[in-house]
Amino acid sequence: MTRQKPAPPSADVRMRGFASRTTVEAALAWVDGQCGRLSAERISIWRAAGRVLASGVVSPIDVPGFARSMMDGFALQAADTLGATPYSRLEAQIIGQSLPGKPFDGIVQPHQAVRIMTGAPLPAGCDAVLPAEQVEVEGPKLLILDPVPPGKNVAHVGEDVAAGGTAVSAGRVLRPQDIGLISSIGQSEVEVVSQPRVRIVVTGNELLPAGSSPAGAQIADSNGPMLAALVARDGGVPLFGPGPLTPPLPSTSNYLVPDDPSAILAAMQADADVILVSGGSSVGQEDHAPSLLAEHGELAIHGIAMRPSSPTGMGRLGERLIFLLPGNPVSCLCAYDFFAGRAIRSLGGRSHDWPYRKLRLPLARKLVSQVGRVDYARARVLGSKVEPVAISGASILSSTTLADGFVMIPADSEGYPAGAEIDVFLYD
Amino acid sequence: MTRQKPAPPSADVRMRGFASRTTVEAALAWVDGQCGRLSAERISIWRAAGRVLASGVVSPIDVPGFARSMMDGFALQAADTLGATPYSRLEAQIIGQSLPGKPFDGIVQPHQAVRIMTGAPLPAGCDAVLPAEQVEVEGPKLLILDPVPPGKNVAHVGEDVAAGGTAVSAGRVLRPQDIGLISSIGQSEVEVVSQPRVRIVVTGNELLPAGSSPAGAQIADSNGPMLAALVARDGGVPLFGPGPLTPPLPSTSNYLVPDDPSAILAAMQADADVILVSGGSSVGQEDHAPSLLAEHGELAIHGIAMRPSSPTGMGRLGERLIFLLPGNPVSCLCAYDFFAGRAIRSLGGRSHDWPYRKLRLPLARKLVSQVGRVDYARARVLGSKVEPVAISGASILSSTTLADGFVMIPADSEGYPAGAEIDVFLYD
Repeated sequence: MTRQKPAPPSADVRMRGFASRTTVEAALAWVDGQCGRLSAERISIWRAAGRVLASGVVSPIDVPGFARSMMDGFALQAADTLGATPYSRLEAQIIGQSLPGKPFDGIVQPHQAVRIMTGAPLPAGCDAVLPAEQVEVEGPKLLILDPVPPGKNVAHVGEDVAAGGTAVSAGRVLRPQDIGLISSIGQSEVEVVSQPRVRIVVTGNELLPAGSSPAGAQIADSNGPMLAALVARDGGVPLFGPGPLTPPLPSTSNYLVPDDPSAILAAMQADADVILVSGGSSVGQEDHAPSLLAEHGELAIHGIAMRPSSPTGMGRLGERLIFLLPGNPVSCLCAYDFFAGRAIRSLGGRSHDWPYRKLRLPLARKLVSQVGRVDYARARVLGSKVEPVAISGASILSSTTLADGFVMIPADSEGYPAGAEIDVFLYD
Repeated sequence: MTRQKPAPPSADVRMRGFASRTTVEAALAWVDGQCGRLSAERISIWRAAGRVLASGVVSPIDVPGFARSMMDGFALQAADTLGATPYSRLEAQIIGQSLPGKPFDGIVQPHQAVRIMTGAPLPAGCDAVLPAEQVEVEGPKLLILDPVPPGKNVAHVGEDVAAGGTAVSAGRVLRPQDIGLISSIGQSEVEVVSQPRVRIVVTGNELLPAGSSPAGAQIADSNGPMLAALVARDGGVPLFGPGPLTPPLPSTSNYLVPDDPSAILAAMQADADVILVSGGSSVGQEDHAPSLLAEHGELAIHGIAMRPSSPTGMGRLGERLIFLLPGNPVSCLCAYDFFAGRAIRSLGGRSHDWPYRKLRLPLARKLVSQVGRVDYARARVLGSKVEPVAISGASILSSTTLADGFVMIPADSEGYPAGAEIDVFLYD
């Protein structure tokens, strides 16, 4: 090794990193411009929890469809109870009973009463229900201890849902009670937004299938099962393998693709709404995916001003939205969360916001960042303070498993002093 | 109807409601005393997201298992870079390359360098990686523009996970990155807490299967699909039908049971960890489940000081934990959330706390409650205030679909004035 004079710039730019980097903001704007909601599909209400309602559910009927009792007691005419007290009882004749599904089918006259159960139809002629606690019964004789006003303890026609009214609005992520209500108006199916089909492609000659014992220079893939879990969390259907749609979760290596241009291109041309390519996303000699995407489709963005995950790319190939995610697992997680997850949630009709709970807490210590890039720092919540764990160390996946969540430092910030209040997003 | 003198108390106590009611606190304590964690099972990491880790995962290996590069660049001896600047370059000879999965297998000497990719094994003899941005390349000649200290840009053996260390702790609800980390240590399966098998039994002669068009006095069940969604949310496996385990979600009426003691008893004796019986849970003439449970098992609690859901029961039948839930859908939801959901979460190794997000907001208006019972009021969040919707109306399921969540008023409270800060639990 010897000293020498400055040389002209080398032509070897392929290993020089990105000439320029897109801002996170611009990359998010690109994602948002690509993600119209997918079309709708009809599914059983039994499978609809957590799905996104594509169009409002309008009830064709009134619920309840008949006036019904809200108490166990006696149906009668409220006027017959006027003035009753425990010491000045009024009397009526019990002429039958109304059970849920087995109504009383006569017409109730003044001074008559019908024993009634909660949920049973109110007999014709009645306008109120006297609760069991406010009567005594002597054989066929009802002794009324208290007065009730008309309408008391009666659920009226359409009180829950009125015919022609919107029972549940479009866009709702269906909750258990929404499904119950839809069931009650006689709908066994609902129209929901289709789930994005997300193909997961993991590249890297050094990789063994997830969960394999590492051997020599070969390591076990971690990104495949991590991405599958992220996609499912965001309402997508993870797909694997370059061929036709395979069952949701693989136990084999059918999602690993060698660092070979034709294999990677074939994987990017498979059927899907979104394709996630993990690994080979940068500008190194084995990074084939970006140039393949540029050649065969559109590489809209490549290189982002953030840390980690700066070697992230995205674009389109035909109808497919393609995300090129760094192979380093922390970078992969971060790039997925910033861009791919947002796209998947939007395609599926969900809020594009992070699904993470947000807390605002003071920093336990100073957090330094570099102006010009967004930093994603893993963090722990200790007591009521947030303790940053790491910004660097993109290969150290345990920094995310030990962390409770992350904080984000915007591009225009040099960081924060100890004690500054900052948003922390919780991983769980 | 004629006035008459007070009569002696009637013997018809069956319609008189509960003689006394258990406090919510005592019922929760009973639930907590019944719910040991279920046994563990081994499952594929591909299916493990959201499951609860039964025992800590200890890594048998170091990850990484070899020193590897964290950058694209050149592996060399750091000492060879000492004093380099862009105007005073140092030189080394490029003698090969190390790629991920394809290591360089010689030993690197002083003044030699090996082109290296991110993730590739560090060649023997090297102790640092010089990033591509800090060199120029002229054929086989490497021109060093900056110094690097020893260890720079190198991930060391065991840096992510050390052999013998706990990679992920027991009790963790597995997140995507946890699964990635477990995969990287060579484990294709994990030991997780078994999911509680929860049989859903809906009684009521007035009920048609979920999603049926109501006809006459017959109404469509709403509680079956609502409970199925709640059970799945809480990590349980919903089961249907009185016979052997059926597929997770029914499309038929195989979960509806008539108001017939022998049918209800048979349903309560079917195989399951938990049985939810909806309907017939009170003290009316068609309420068979409580007396059946008292006769054939243990009816530990029946009647709770709360509104809605006071006609809730719970107990055991053999190994099965049984919850008798009111048929009114709001009461059913509330009783599930207070008691059954807590049991299911605990059996499955999860926190027994509500899975609802909690906000603390001022009340938009006064909220009146009755001392001696817990009230569960559906509520909307409007702007930054919480607006109570309803405490009564146990049959009005739309009060829960229109609501954003609920507030709870403790038994010792008469309610709160407008503006009081109160916890609101969000349904989503």
